[in-house]
Amino acid sequence: MRLSFDEIQGEISRAFIAHGMSPDKAATCARIHTETTNDGVYSHGTNRVPRFAEYLDNGWVDPAAEPTLIKEFGPIRIYDGNMGPGILNALYAVEQGMALAQAHGLAMIGLKNTTHWMRGGTYALAAAQRGFVSVMWTNTESVMPPWGAKDSRLGNNPFVLAVPRAAGTFPILFDMALSQYSFGKLGVMQLAGETLPFPGGFDQEGQVSYDPATIIDSRRVMPIGFWKGSGFSFMLDILAAALTDGSGAAELDCKGMGSCGGASQVMILIDPRKLSSAETFEEHLLRSIGHLKSSPPLAGSNGAAVPGEGVLRFRAAHAEQGIFVDDKIWSEIKAL
Amino acid sequence: MRLSFDEIQGEISRAFIAHGMSPDKAATCARIHTETTNDGVYSHGTNRVPRFAEYLDNGWVDPAAEPTLIKEFGPIRIYDGNMGPGILNALYAVEQGMALAQAHGLAMIGLKNTTHWMRGGTYALAAAQRGFVSVMWTNTESVMPPWGAKDSRLGNNPFVLAVPRAAGTFPILFDMALSQYSFGKLGVMQLAGETLPFPGGFDQEGQVSYDPATIIDSRRVMPIGFWKGSGFSFMLDILAAALTDGSGAAELDCKGMGSCGGASQVMILIDPRKLSSAETFEEHLLRSIGHLKSSPPLAGSNGAAVPGEGVLRFRAAHAEQGIFVDDKIWSEIKAL
Repeated sequence: MRLSFDEIQGEISRAFIAHGMSPDKAATCARIHTETTNDGVYSHGTNRVPRFAEYLDNGWVDPAAEPTLIKEFGPIRIYDGNMGPGILNALYAVEQGMALAQAHGLAMIGLKNTTHWMRGGTYALAAAQRGFVSVMWTNTESVMPPWGAKDSRLGNNPFVLAVPRAAGTFPILFDMALSQYSFGKLGVMQLAGETLPFPGGFDQEGQVSYDPATIIDSRRVMPIGFWKGSGFSFMLDILAAALTDGSGAAELDCKGMGSCGGASQVMILIDPRKLSSAETFEEHLLRSIGHLKSSPPLAGSNGAAVPGEGVLRFRAAHAEQGIFVDDKIWSEIKAL
Repeated sequence: MRLSFDEIQGEISRAFIAHGMSPDKAATCARIHTETTNDGVYSHGTNRVPRFAEYLDNGWVDPAAEPTLIKEFGPIRIYDGNMGPGILNALYAVEQGMALAQAHGLAMIGLKNTTHWMRGGTYALAAAQRGFVSVMWTNTESVMPPWGAKDSRLGNNPFVLAVPRAAGTFPILFDMALSQYSFGKLGVMQLAGETLPFPGGFDQEGQVSYDPATIIDSRRVMPIGFWKGSGFSFMLDILAAALTDGSGAAELDCKGMGSCGGASQVMILIDPRKLSSAETFEEHLLRSIGHLKSSPPLAGSNGAAVPGEGVLRFRAAHAEQGIFVDDKIWSEIKAL
C-alpha cells in the first residue's frame, strides 16, 4: 500500500510507545524507520519494526537507556550505549562526532554495548548533510565463514562512507554490508525460483553455492570478494571491539540478544571545510562524477551509478505516489 | 635464485643510484623493496624495480623531490609529494602521522602529487610496529569498469588496515587492492592454462569473464564484490582526491605518468594507548583470533587465516633458504 510519511511515523511511534518507549524516543526512532523506508531501504525501515518491538519485549534493548561517556582524549570519545536503542545511540554519537570534528577537523567516536543501528547510512547521511565526510562501521554477530573454514565466525559488518556535496545537492553515500547478498535478497530470489548470478554462500559442507535455498538453510553467506571480504570483515570486527573495549563477534555470538545486540561501532568524521573551500571540494566531486558517468552503459543497464543516487529516485517516486509499505508488514505494525 | 637481504638491497640501491637517486634515498627505497620481497610480496618488491628505474628515466618520478606541507589543522596535515619517490613520500607521511597521533590520539595525513607507494602494507606495518592502528588508501589510474558500464573508470585503489599486537608479536595487517585478481595473478593463471575459479573481469564487450587471457587483453578487471567494490573504489578515489585537493582517476588517466603517477593518498592513524592498556587491547585481539581460528578448516585448506599471518611464513622460509628472487628479474636488476 501507499501511505504518507506522517501516517507511517505515527503508527510506528504508537507501536514503540506500546512496547515501552517514551513518546519522545519513540517519535525519533519512528522518524528514522520512516526516512529509511522513504529512501527505499525497506529492509531496515518499516520491515524491521516488528522485530525491534520483539527485542523490546525480550529485554534485548533497554528503551530508557542513554549513552554514557567512558573515555575521551582530544578528538576521540568512547561511549557505552548501555544496550539502549541503536538508532538513538548512533544519532547521539554522530552529533558528538560532528561537534568534535568541527573543533579539531577530525574526530572519532566509539560506541560499545549498543544495539542494531538499522540503516548505517542514516548517520553518515546526517553528517554529510551538515558538511562532514565520514567513515563508519559496526560489527555484528557471525553470518559468514572465514575463507578456508566451515563455520560462521564473521559478521556482515556494514561499512559506510559519505561525502558532502554543495548545498542543496544530495550527498554521495556508500553503505555496504560485507556479505555479497543479504538474507532478504536471498529470500526474494528463492521465492522467484531463481539461481544467483554470482556465488552467494556455502552449503552445510562448506561448498560454494549459487542456490538461495541452500544458503538460507546453511546460514552461511559469501563475503564480498571471497577471501578479501573475509579478511576485511575480521578487521572491522576487531577494530570496533578493541578500540571501544567492547564486544566482537566472539562475544556477540554468545550473548544471544538478537542481531547486533551489544555491538561495537566506530565513526570517524572529517570536516573538509578546514582543508579547502566548498567550491574546490565540489569541483573535485564533479570531475570524478563526470569521469565515472562517461563510461558507456552496458546494453540493458542504466550505466555507472554514483553511490547513493538511487535514494533520490525512491524519494521522488514516494513523493508522487505515497511511500510504499508492504501490506503484511503494515498489518503487523498495526497489531503491535 | 636465493640471495641475502644485503645482496638484494645493495644491488637495487646501486641500480637506483645509476638512475639518478642520491645514495641515501636509493638505500631507503632499496630497503623497502627488499623488505617487501622478504615478506613474500614479490610483485611490489624486486619485481617492480626495473619499472621504477624506467619511471626515473622517463622523468615520471623526481628522485630529488621532497614533500612539502601545504595545509594543516589540528591533527590533520596535507602534503604535496611533488612527484617524488612514492616510497619516500609515504614513509615521511606516516612518520608525521604517528607524531600527530601521539599528540592528539588520532591523526590524518593527506598526500597529493605522489607516485607509486609500492606495497601499501609497508606504511601500515611501520605504524603498527610502533603501536598505532591505521586506515590507509591510495587512488590509482583506472583499470576497472564501473558496474553497469563498459570502459574502465575505477582504480584498484589499495585499502590497508593494520592493528598493533603485544610487543614482539607481528601486527595484524590487511592489505587489499579492490580488484578481485591482480594482473600478475591473471598472468600466472594464463601461463598455467587455467580458468579462474571466480569471475575475474570483463571482455571487450563488457561481458563477465573467467578467462585470464581475455581479461588481460581487455585490461578490465573485476572489482571485489561486483557492484559493491565498484562503489567502494569510487569512494576511495574521490575521498583521496577531494581531501588532499589532489588528483583522482579522472586526472591520473590523462597524465600518462605511469601507474599511480600523481596519485593521492590518505592515512588515518589512531593511538590505542590513549584509550586502553596494551593488555586490554591485546586481550580483545586474542579473543577475536581464537574465535576465528575455532572454525573447522575445509578439506584441503589450512583453515581461517588472520590477515598478515602469511608474512611470517615467507620470512621464516627466506631466513632459512635465502630470499627468493626470480632469475630473470635479477638479471634485469643487474643490468640496470
